[in-house]
Amino acid sequence: MRMSRLFFRTLREVPADAESASHRLLLRAGLVHQLAAGIFDFLPLGQRVKAKIEAIMREEMDAIGGQEVSLPLVHPAELWQRSGRWYQIGDDMARFTDRNGRAYCLAMTHEEAMAELVQQVVRSYRQLPLLLYQIQTKFRDEPRPRGGLIRVREFTMKDAYSFDRDQAGLDAFYPRIYQAYFNIFRRCGLDVMAVESDTGMMGGSMAHEFMALTPVGEDTLLLCDACGYRANRQIARFRKPEPPQASPLPREEVHTPGVDTIAGLARYLGIPEAETAKAIFLVAEMQEDGSGEPREQFVFAVVRGDMELNETKLANAVGARRLRPATHQEIRAIGAEPGYGSPVGVDRSQALVVVDDLVARSPNLVAGANRPDYHFRHVNFDRDYQAHVVTDIVAAAEGHGCIRCGSPLRAARGIEVGNIFKLGTRYSEAMGATYLDEEGNARPLVMGSYGIGSGRLLASIIEQNHDEYGIIWPITVAPYQVALVSLFTGRTPQVVEAADRFYEALIGAGVEVLYDDRDERAGVKFNDADLLGIPIRLTVGARGLAEGLVELKLRRNGETRPVAVEELVPAVQEAIQAERARIEATLTQEVLDIQPGR
Amino acid sequence: MRMSRLFFRTLREVPADAESASHRLLLRAGLVHQLAAGIFDFLPLGQRVKAKIEAIMREEMDAIGGQEVSLPLVHPAELWQRSGRWYQIGDDMARFTDRNGRAYCLAMTHEEAMAELVQQVVRSYRQLPLLLYQIQTKFRDEPRPRGGLIRVREFTMKDAYSFDRDQAGLDAFYPRIYQAYFNIFRRCGLDVMAVESDTGMMGGSMAHEFMALTPVGEDTLLLCDACGYRANRQIARFRKPEPPQASPLPREEVHTPGVDTIAGLARYLGIPEAETAKAIFLVAEMQEDGSGEPREQFVFAVVRGDMELNETKLANAVGARRLRPATHQEIRAIGAEPGYGSPVGVDRSQALVVVDDLVARSPNLVAGANRPDYHFRHVNFDRDYQAHVVTDIVAAAEGHGCIRCGSPLRAARGIEVGNIFKLGTRYSEAMGATYLDEEGNARPLVMGSYGIGSGRLLASIIEQNHDEYGIIWPITVAPYQVALVSLFTGRTPQVVEAADRFYEALIGAGVEVLYDDRDERAGVKFNDADLLGIPIRLTVGARGLAEGLVELKLRRNGETRPVAVEELVPAVQEAIQAERARIEATLTQEVLDIQPGR
Repeated sequence: MRMSRLFFRTLREVPADAESASHRLLLRAGLVHQLAAGIFDFLPLGQRVKAKIEAIMREEMDAIGGQEVSLPLVHPAELWQRSGRWYQIGDDMARFTDRNGRAYCLAMTHEEAMAELVQQVVRSYRQLPLLLYQIQTKFRDEPRPRGGLIRVREFTMKDAYSFDRDQAGLDAFYPRIYQAYFNIFRRCGLDVMAVESDTGMMGGSMAHEFMALTPVGEDTLLLCDACGYRANRQIARFRKPEPPQASPLPREEVHTPGVDTIAGLARYLGIPEAETAKAIFLVAEMQEDGSGEPREQFVFAVVRGDMELNETKLANAVGARRLRPATHQEIRAIGAEPGYGSPVGVDRSQALVVVDDLVARSPNLVAGANRPDYHFRHVNFDRDYQAHVVTDIVAAAEGHGCIRCGSPLRAARGIEVGNIFKLGTRYSEAMGATYLDEEGNARPLVMGSYGIGSGRLLASIIEQNHDEYGIIWPITVAPYQVALVSLFTGRTPQVVEAADRFYEALIGAGVEVLYDDRDERAGVKFNDADLLGIPIRLTVGARGLAEGLVELKLRRNGETRPVAVEELVPAVQEAIQAERARIEATLTQEVLDIQPGR
Repeated sequence: MRMSRLFFRTLREVPADAESASHRLLLRAGLVHQLAAGIFDFLPLGQRVKAKIEAIMREEMDAIGGQEVSLPLVHPAELWQRSGRWYQIGDDMARFTDRNGRAYCLAMTHEEAMAELVQQVVRSYRQLPLLLYQIQTKFRDEPRPRGGLIRVREFTMKDAYSFDRDQAGLDAFYPRIYQAYFNIFRRCGLDVMAVESDTGMMGGSMAHEFMALTPVGEDTLLLCDACGYRANRQIARFRKPEPPQASPLPREEVHTPGVDTIAGLARYLGIPEAETAKAIFLVAEMQEDGSGEPREQFVFAVVRGDMELNETKLANAVGARRLRPATHQEIRAIGAEPGYGSPVGVDRSQALVVVDDLVARSPNLVAGANRPDYHFRHVNFDRDYQAHVVTDIVAAAEGHGCIRCGSPLRAARGIEVGNIFKLGTRYSEAMGATYLDEEGNARPLVMGSYGIGSGRLLASIIEQNHDEYGIIWPITVAPYQVALVSLFTGRTPQVVEAADRFYEALIGAGVEVLYDDRDERAGVKFNDADLLGIPIRLTVGARGLAEGLVELKLRRNGETRPVAVEELVPAVQEAIQAERARIEATLTQEVLDIQPGR
């Protein structure tokens, strides 16, 4: 492609609202243009990278027996009503009515539609197992689109769905998709780590997220460098400290005027925060299967004073679709007092009381007395209050002991670039997707679901592959392999003539060349080549040509060498091959580490 | 692909509601599955054909300098408000509000979004001309989805947009896209004809539709076999007969009891229908630029009794977005009488009177007297009534004289598989898409817009390429090139062994093979191969193998020949090449025939 004809525009200035490197570079290099919040145009250079990423995804899916299909974006409401997600999912789902008043949504994912399709086609165990995938548009009305392509509303996703006879089949397949996902990311030049994750709105028994580590990541991961335990903070477990062994002492009220925080309370009483219990008042929007209005439920959570509530764990524990802080009025309505709350004496018919297991095991904690300016000493679970649920609801944090080996956990931030879920039979049962086994019995298909967003992957590659001058594309996904830069003036027509010839020769040899034939200064051309991040740059100038030489430079490390004009094509092919080999060297076998604690 | 692993299902029975051959075969061969009205899943075989069609479109767009981009499906309302189409387009456009109450629509086409993008990137005449294209999902809430993939709501479209400095640039480019479109269809094995067409909701100065002739087509075309004039009935013009030369006679009322049709009137008075004037009462929803409610306008159309009103011409003549029949009450409100209506004496402040030019030139017609059971004789335009608009508003029909040469026109039905429009500056002006010319003056870009729907093209290929047994795919778009059928029993394991070997050898040679390795009867396998329409069938059986032979059969014509096992791969490659050559032979140079009469 001649750059004089290329539909692109580079920006010198950094757009003011772009907070991450990939967002800045996507805009500066003119790969995308934002049409509306979280809704982007892909320009030719961006589209080429996206297409290459998608080709890699296709190859890896085909390699594990995937068959490509294409399902619609617009789904009838009825499809999502059958699984219940029409009611469970809130504003994230875009909905509209058609000209006849029928309700539709824009698909955020395709479990329902895939199960419905498979129900039409699969009859017998002989047709199993099955892996279907598509690369397709989806829409999710994110509350806060951000980071350029990191969190958008309209996006392209490679989503795959497996269908097995039984859980054992799914368990056997899961490590294969796990490996395929590593292959996809590594072939794109992205370094990722797989962590255990929440199954969220998907449901299911096991899930992993593939995380590209970067400080701009939205997710916090907890990692054990000793044993390799890795989990998203949303579900990370840890080894809780053993509470002191002590006999329950008689409960007594203490006057704590104006002391309405845990930190203040510990200071006031001269005790560690670990000897207090913290009350958190929330209102849950509960999951419903029927078509009624969402039901609200007051939730009273209790964690040890030195720990943080993990809302994901709590939501999972009570089956909540969403949680919001309770108002003072709502708190007082159940008999508690904001700033001085505890479950002691609270009306359990009005509040779902959820107590962290460590609190339940800790004797003689200080807790609120449910009246202003007073706390209780020596509060003991079971004797002084009861709970509806006792389970782990606190967040793991850096320094906590690893659930497996006890070593201190480390926290890191990452972008979730892919996820895989063992779903089980939730969707196949809802859609009636069954098969007949050898004995002729109808059994529900056991499903898995696996997704990667093309655009977020593209942005993550930039996050990990850039410098102050621009993007550094891995050769496998670069929009062009070679930037051919001609440095000519009105007095050096021979440079144009030679560069034109090299361009044709490289194209003829199957090399993807972006030829900067523009009448611009050398600085402009070099800056643009660096910004666009083309892996191999060839510079054709009058001085070099006089000696029969062209300069070959690697974007990755700035390595430069002269190449004889007559050796140009093989030298470029060799350089491309070397860049490819670097990527391929990162492809290693992964062992799915089934971790305890779920 | 081994058929035992393929995600597919063939149906023996014809689905009851499928009215066209392509619809029946799409369902019977299991290429698609309907999720909701006009919303389809593509199964692996259908997806493969679609991908091949799209690859051909890509190649032809690239060949004329097209650059691929990808724009979103979800557009902010504001984008379409700027062009006015937010108000002009009615229920066909799906609209929704996001979580923040902002209005969005699902894009039906991308003129606005492309102009907005180009506005961001293009500054100078040096960046022109430009051709951008995408292959992307669109949604149109069709009132009557039908014919399987012929008329759907969600669809994939290859849409392209050209940007030129001036009309001369667009005029010079238009024949190139015209040729590229012929190439695309012919490479897909589809025989098409280009006809002049209405510019419809697009606006613009010229448009062509590419029509696949088939009796199930929704469009009627008028064709002149003598001079080559071709036009969609919506806009087709014809040479109107010369009215008789006669002096206006005095108007007189005649009693015509119960005679409220043109046919009845002509019979009753013993005159030809050509000597009557027919009144048609409609209410137009008028195009509006502002944000107000659509305005209704009574339209009173008059055509000669022997001709039919052409609603497209009428709508274009008055600037209507839509037309509906007027009610009796509405007709009487303007002073006319249903069944006995004419413009004579009608209140022109309440009705927009549009008279066909032939009626205006015809003396002494019989027309309604605007009271029950009475007509007027000798009604003359201008003397007895006036009009707001006099223009051509009647439909051309078979037998009418060609506008160019006068020969009788022939009618045919076709499916519109593509369209191309010269748009001019409507969208670039609305979006502020300008460039600076050599003198530094900002000028609006001159646009063209060009679309082909992948799914409708796929269905049209089937309409033209099938027989009673199933589809006959042209080799260029066939899901697989070769169907390898093994006929084995428990007593012929050598057949399986040989077929496996042939499968591997063919795959190794780059041949796309669908290997029917299922344990099914020969009849089932042959029927499925015919239904799926794979161009080349290889049959491996015990008897043939004993003689070292495999049978090669062409789906297209049933031609069969034995091939020696050791010659199998080259023989198949040769057959593929011959099938390709047949398609390539249809690629001929087209001359864009700029036709008069617009």
